[in-house]
Amino acid sequence: MKIIVVGGTGTIGSEVVKALAARHEVVSISRSSQPAVDYARPETIAALFAKLGAADAVISCAGGAAFKPLDQLTDADFEKSLQDKLMGQVRLAMAALGNLNAPGSITLTGGVMAHEPMPGGAAISLVNAALEGFVRGAALELKNGLRVNLVSPPWVTETIKKLGMGVARHLPAAQVARAYVASVEGKQTGEILDPARF
Amino acid sequence: MKIIVVGGTGTIGSEVVKALAARHEVVSISRSSQPAVDYARPETIAALFAKLGAADAVISCAGGAAFKPLDQLTDADFEKSLQDKLMGQVRLAMAALGNLNAPGSITLTGGVMAHEPMPGGAAISLVNAALEGFVRGAALELKNGLRVNLVSPPWVTETIKKLGMGVARHLPAAQVARAYVASVEGKQTGEILDPARF
Repeated sequence: MKIIVVGGTGTIGSEVVKALAARHEVVSISRSSQPAVDYARPETIAALFAKLGAADAVISCAGGAAFKPLDQLTDADFEKSLQDKLMGQVRLAMAALGNLNAPGSITLTGGVMAHEPMPGGAAISLVNAALEGFVRGAALELKNGLRVNLVSPPWVTETIKKLGMGVARHLPAAQVARAYVASVEGKQTGEILDPARF
Repeated sequence: MKIIVVGGTGTIGSEVVKALAARHEVVSISRSSQPAVDYARPETIAALFAKLGAADAVISCAGGAAFKPLDQLTDADFEKSLQDKLMGQVRLAMAALGNLNAPGSITLTGGVMAHEPMPGGAAISLVNAALEGFVRGAALELKNGLRVNLVSPPWVTETIKKLGMGVARHLPAAQVARAYVASVEGKQTGEILDPARF
């Protein structure tokens, strides 16, 4: 399969690329690749498939949202979160609709904060839950065997160590990557995939 | 209690106003009330409390999102949905933070499509799920006994009849209204309230 991984150089994305590369043709895309995708610049999303041609699967391991105490979250923080992690991925999925070979798949990234909130995470909980709603809804309407799933990672061990955070539940990026592989190589659609199961 | 109901003239909102009016001072707000709130005009949200003063509870029964087949949903459809039903209510909640008497409450409106998608509903599923994530996240950080809940209505009987739709599960607006009353008069916070339980 020809698989496009947006965010392919990140902590999770680089493990996803590694896990898929043995069996598939993987195109790793970042904000500085050629072509580049930057969710803050929607035109780069729209241009991706024109530059790369059709693919069999597209994976997004990219997108940020504001982590900030509720009473400090500004309208601009919400807006940036909506435009980046949420609409960046929704736009990628919508662009993929007309550019995936049948039966192809779209795999997006949400996160555990959708259902396990923490202080400072209101905008992240909003965005991650929104992505779950989108995937559940969109899955009903995909044609030609196209599928869409969301991987909902917990904190990643590498990130916890880097930030020196005390979080009880975390998984190594290499394990999280297995959920993306399952989404691409499996048959499920409209699913929220918890990497702890893989 | 002094309770502000935004969307107080709508199908659900008018029943909420009716249910609360016997025991409370209810201020019903619509796009054409004085003052008015129109979620498409954020400045009307920001100005609401300056005009009405502090309140004990604020309820939102307002906000729209695009209902359209997935392959016809445009970026503008998503954007309008995000700005109206999602950010309209988030902005109202954020404005309420500094303007509710302690212990006050915020009650927003989501909907069953967050978890029970239907064709044409991808943007609505996205928005309703996002509101659930926001409420779960924000509840953790409210101070002085402030509470926030979301009512997640199924289809409303009156709407089904008006549109001549064949939907199996629906509830009369007067029953849906009881979930809002429970949110205001109860103690729960961070909850997604299913009106079928009330």
